[in-house]
Amino acid sequence: MKREDLFQQILSKESFLCIGLDSDYQKIPEHLKITEEPLFQFNKEIIDQTHNTCVAFKLNTAFYEAFGREGWEALEKTAEYIKKNHPEIFLIADAKRGDIGNTSKMYARCFFENMNFDAVTVAPYMGSDSIKPFLGYENKWVIILGLTSNKGASDFQFFYSEKEKQKLYEKVINTAKNWGTTDNTMFVTGATKAEEIKKIRKLIPDHFLLVPGVGAQGGSLEEVAKNGINNKCGLLVNSSRGIIFSDDSKNFGASARKKALEINNSMKKMLSKLS
Amino acid sequence: MKREDLFQQILSKESFLCIGLDSDYQKIPEHLKITEEPLFQFNKEIIDQTHNTCVAFKLNTAFYEAFGREGWEALEKTAEYIKKNHPEIFLIADAKRGDIGNTSKMYARCFFENMNFDAVTVAPYMGSDSIKPFLGYENKWVIILGLTSNKGASDFQFFYSEKEKQKLYEKVINTAKNWGTTDNTMFVTGATKAEEIKKIRKLIPDHFLLVPGVGAQGGSLEEVAKNGINNKCGLLVNSSRGIIFSDDSKNFGASARKKALEINNSMKKMLSKLS
Repeated sequence: MKREDLFQQILSKESFLCIGLDSDYQKIPEHLKITEEPLFQFNKEIIDQTHNTCVAFKLNTAFYEAFGREGWEALEKTAEYIKKNHPEIFLIADAKRGDIGNTSKMYARCFFENMNFDAVTVAPYMGSDSIKPFLGYENKWVIILGLTSNKGASDFQFFYSEKEKQKLYEKVINTAKNWGTTDNTMFVTGATKAEEIKKIRKLIPDHFLLVPGVGAQGGSLEEVAKNGINNKCGLLVNSSRGIIFSDDSKNFGASARKKALEINNSMKKMLSKLS
Repeated sequence: MKREDLFQQILSKESFLCIGLDSDYQKIPEHLKITEEPLFQFNKEIIDQTHNTCVAFKLNTAFYEAFGREGWEALEKTAEYIKKNHPEIFLIADAKRGDIGNTSKMYARCFFENMNFDAVTVAPYMGSDSIKPFLGYENKWVIILGLTSNKGASDFQFFYSEKEKQKLYEKVINTAKNWGTTDNTMFVTGATKAEEIKKIRKLIPDHFLLVPGVGAQGGSLEEVAKNGINNKCGLLVNSSRGIIFSDDSKNFGASARKKALEINNSMKKMLSKLS
């Protein structure tokens, strides 16, 4: 997907919401567990109910792998369902992959060719040749871990070089922004670090940021928008558990829609100055 | 698997070889591609021919994911086959995972519960809570990326703090060695950086190192052993392409065995002083 198409979708839906399909088998409603495809049936209902409140779906591969080969099948089927029925959606594989060149090439093939994801999240530790194979696809994206939303982020991401006058996460952003362009590279920026989002915006004024950590992890949407929004929006704010597991009854889809609409409504106001 | 059991296996097989099953569909012999389970049939032959030349097999998840749901099935089936027929083998999922706590927990469940891997490789960028869920399993291991064998390793792993007087990869090792013990934590240390292996041995004299990069990537086994071996061996040296794709005829299994035996014979001499 082109950046301009993503932006137009944001304007028309008045939303920069990404819904995370962290579809944990143990947390899905009981009545689905006796069906043949519990994870897919769960996802389908969430997708049908929420696709017009959000611009992206993010599939967290861990929750599918944890369910074995059937889980992998549910991942493939969900990706296919979204692209077939809602081709405007920006589809993210939250896989956090990264390996030597010939291996990363395989991961890229997996998510961009076998499945039709628009973007894959990648870990930067192994450097350029672990990420460049993902950049060889037209209209596909890498989303590189910059500053993550979890507590452990402080273990290494704030590691500081006095000589370079930058922290590791800044080094990652400053280096990796030159590997691709604003049309194929985004950065993960945790919502729990609102003050840092301001700094990151100075480093990369035009890149899209994928922002996890709003909701269950405690980040504030208002703070994120205040510090992160740019003239092409430049934000995809993700919420997973807060939306998809808001209700474990047969009514879970409608409840998820309600939660997603609440966020969508807040976003409308934040976007009003852009349109 | 306990560390002592791994060491005893090393002594009895006179080998610290790990064979990487980077089973790329495009590179396996043509006659296997018309079978129903090409990746599994390829792996089975390699395993049958080489299991007594090596102490570990490493399955690189990328090559299975790139083959879709059938690939995932081949991954599961191969892991099962190894554990059933060669329970002494140390079985590694080379997955380079790492995510926030509740997600890493899913990956741990995937590789340690659904499948019976002894170890998973993990990326350290997201810090302690991304790795600790893997440490909650008795006799299971995490293998943390320290200094990798690829060219891109220099992009961030050598990032230096003047105040802390250490590079990022040293910071990772110095920090992460305290999360677990020498009985559940290893570090990836690329064979292409032989001089650095000496430094790493000073930081962690007793930990096992998983060493990729010998063979196709250019690292020297002699240099690695000279700088890395400790009194419990402390090394697993991996070779993938150099062994498994040494021949693409029907004779590929015997050729792989020959290549593995060559390495095994070199290792015998290196280990003679330990027994």
